[in-house]
Amino acid sequence: MNDVSGGGKGVSYDPSTFQPLTYVEGTGDFASGKDSPSAYLERCLDVISAREGTVKAWVTLNESGAKEQADASTKRWKAGEPLSPIDGMPIGVKDLYMTKDMPTQMGSPLYAGRMTGEDSAPVQALRLAGAVVLGKTVTTELGFSHPGPTTNPFDPERTPGGSSSGSAAVIGAGMVPAALGSQVVGSIIRPAGFCANTAIKPTLGALHRGERQGMSHSHLGVHAGSIADMWAVAHAISHFVGGDPGSPGLFGPQTAPVASKPQRLIVVESEGWSQTDDVTKTAFETLIDRIAASGVEIVRRAGHGDIDAFETEIAESLLLCRDICGWEMLWTLRNLAEKDVTKLSDSMRQRLSMASEMSIDDYRAALTKREAMRARFKAVAANADAMITLSSTGPAPKFVESATQEGEPGLIHTTGLPAYNAWTSAIGCPCVTVPMLSVDGMPVGVQVIGRHNEDWRTGAMARWVQDTMEPVVV
Amino acid sequence: MNDVSGGGKGVSYDPSTFQPLTYVEGTGDFASGKDSPSAYLERCLDVISAREGTVKAWVTLNESGAKEQADASTKRWKAGEPLSPIDGMPIGVKDLYMTKDMPTQMGSPLYAGRMTGEDSAPVQALRLAGAVVLGKTVTTELGFSHPGPTTNPFDPERTPGGSSSGSAAVIGAGMVPAALGSQVVGSIIRPAGFCANTAIKPTLGALHRGERQGMSHSHLGVHAGSIADMWAVAHAISHFVGGDPGSPGLFGPQTAPVASKPQRLIVVESEGWSQTDDVTKTAFETLIDRIAASGVEIVRRAGHGDIDAFETEIAESLLLCRDICGWEMLWTLRNLAEKDVTKLSDSMRQRLSMASEMSIDDYRAALTKREAMRARFKAVAANADAMITLSSTGPAPKFVESATQEGEPGLIHTTGLPAYNAWTSAIGCPCVTVPMLSVDGMPVGVQVIGRHNEDWRTGAMARWVQDTMEPVVV
Repeated sequence: MNDVSGGGKGVSYDPSTFQPLTYVEGTGDFASGKDSPSAYLERCLDVISAREGTVKAWVTLNESGAKEQADASTKRWKAGEPLSPIDGMPIGVKDLYMTKDMPTQMGSPLYAGRMTGEDSAPVQALRLAGAVVLGKTVTTELGFSHPGPTTNPFDPERTPGGSSSGSAAVIGAGMVPAALGSQVVGSIIRPAGFCANTAIKPTLGALHRGERQGMSHSHLGVHAGSIADMWAVAHAISHFVGGDPGSPGLFGPQTAPVASKPQRLIVVESEGWSQTDDVTKTAFETLIDRIAASGVEIVRRAGHGDIDAFETEIAESLLLCRDICGWEMLWTLRNLAEKDVTKLSDSMRQRLSMASEMSIDDYRAALTKREAMRARFKAVAANADAMITLSSTGPAPKFVESATQEGEPGLIHTTGLPAYNAWTSAIGCPCVTVPMLSVDGMPVGVQVIGRHNEDWRTGAMARWVQDTMEPVVV
Repeated sequence: MNDVSGGGKGVSYDPSTFQPLTYVEGTGDFASGKDSPSAYLERCLDVISAREGTVKAWVTLNESGAKEQADASTKRWKAGEPLSPIDGMPIGVKDLYMTKDMPTQMGSPLYAGRMTGEDSAPVQALRLAGAVVLGKTVTTELGFSHPGPTTNPFDPERTPGGSSSGSAAVIGAGMVPAALGSQVVGSIIRPAGFCANTAIKPTLGALHRGERQGMSHSHLGVHAGSIADMWAVAHAISHFVGGDPGSPGLFGPQTAPVASKPQRLIVVESEGWSQTDDVTKTAFETLIDRIAASGVEIVRRAGHGDIDAFETEIAESLLLCRDICGWEMLWTLRNLAEKDVTKLSDSMRQRLSMASEMSIDDYRAALTKREAMRARFKAVAANADAMITLSSTGPAPKFVESATQEGEPGLIHTTGLPAYNAWTSAIGCPCVTVPMLSVDGMPVGVQVIGRHNEDWRTGAMARWVQDTMEPVVV
């Protein structure tokens, strides 16, 4: 278990010593009683007790309910009848998704104390798999830009990222082995990278979003401490409730992706590159050099017209996401503004104002642009095993610095820039981030990006990077 | 206005005298004050007062709110500043969709009295267009098979159809000029035909379903008394809130479809034909003969291998819809059953039981089948201007008869059989039904089925049938 002595001060990131919590690969001791889900949960609660005062990752904790769930799981493992590989795993749920036993408040005072009495589809799947639904994690306001109280577990003066702020932080702080997040612009991969998570934004639609079907390219995903746990949670969700309506769900076996060396990787720069600091660029290029040195062919836009055309195609993805999300959330924002506009943040009112200027033809133009991006991605992605890029423009910014960072044009992003993520969200391809870089004592993630429905294989290549390459410390 | 003297006994259907309410083509008198939305609403309320005791089409009426809305509209028309062509139109909303000022009870005791405080996207669009949201219309339980109290406006011993029972009945009874319905198997076109509506099930995704995104081929549509009103309501919804997330919305101008004669029509028999009574078959064939006599080329499976292959492809659409809907509603039904299983009907528990036996691979197989149907439809539909078929297997069955009618295999359909509708729902093509047949003194609809996104053109061809062909009385 991670050293928790940092307590209120955060724990500086050292990739050679950082040990996130893991679960599925340690369940072999549950049958004998040497360890148990109940004991595992207690250890989680100890870490939470030590660190939550500073990290502030949880909106709601259901300790007593979790203990009952863990006790039931302990009995199942002893009887040799676990419901799934994640039976007994304590999990945090981003507070955008309904839980029958806890409020669902969506980071907005407009939903303060709201009890739905129902489980969202993925939460229901977790329970059917025997997992312990420990609590709700902090999200930004309605999953967009306005931050919650969470701090980065490696430096309390920095953002954990957003909108899956709490879900990223609970992994980085070693509080639980997995948490659910969601991404419509850059809300899984970016915070996961800021907090040294291993995480997946799967193929669009592969994991059921339950009642959260309002955004056409939002994704449910998983934050974890290892590829194995990440995959086990994702697989369980798809197995029990499938993907979004009309989607075939997540493909791949129940067993975790095994490390698989790619033959050729495309380095994608995207609109993130020009916003990335030089130190982070150096760290990333060092990693790419090491991957190349291991015999993987690296290609990028220079000298490759097809990749250059793709880079041009995706160069304004933040703007595209702003417009698509704006139109799609407009009717909901109108409802909320009518209820009490003073309970919307300035940035949300700015989104409402911008979206109100849109017409259906603006939206159609954006959809057409997105389709063109997807078509070109499919053509280019066929020419290599995967793509690789940074998960963020650098380490998590300090709060004081992030207060002025512009993300989508015209919108301040107080949780770091999603400039490496917007294009992947719009295209809907699977992305797996692994914590491969350390910059100024903070984690920075690198993401492997695969073809649609090749989530398992994408995880396998990310695992190869993680298992084979030495982290780069600059 | 329709003769309301039938009062409690229902009004037998005579196509030569039946005059449904219409709106947009009569708004020319509003500027002068010769007529007004307020006066129009009062006439609607008179009909409702006379007939609702027997028809039982409304779950909730908001008379005082409607009067305020109509008064505001009256002022806008007088000032020459209507918000849209449907400004002031009294509209019923199927009680599956949220309304901020009325409960949303979804035909289930599990939602009795539920106030959401929010408008669904299409309801918000109606308000932005100035329409008068008069009340919520009866739906079957959660939009499936278990009926509400509504009776057929042309015979109180018969079903109005379902699940859009109330929305179809309010049109047939002349209570309002338009109402919102929805269809995932046969819930718009079938009841619309039973109640002498003109109605559209648009291209899948063309009209925003708001919070109701849980079923991958459910459609929001419009019941009306005329093509002009039907189109005006549909256009307003798409204009103000668009289509479903990721959909380009409804295409076509604001102006109503003008009658357009097709050159070639494909008669589709589908799994409905073998379940259709001989009298209805005769009436339909008579209409087809008249259309052919007017110079339209009629083709069907006999002698046309491509059409025959298409008929084979869609021959088990009811079963397909049962499986797709079953898997997609499973997580919601589990939530409801856990709340209080005794508040689910027998037929809904039957659906839950069947769906619980499904795996994600069963669902994938169903999606693959649906994709194949869609692909073959696109190929076949390119060979004619449109398709034409019955809207139902006959006139609305009597309640005593419908209590044993099997729809999807293994499921009783107490609101008539959706055997002519399931395939169009799965494929997602636009369908417009017009009341062209009278069988045993009851209306039977005929639907024109167009290519995806050709909703306006489909309406234009349906209008040609309606304007040019004499109704068939048998």
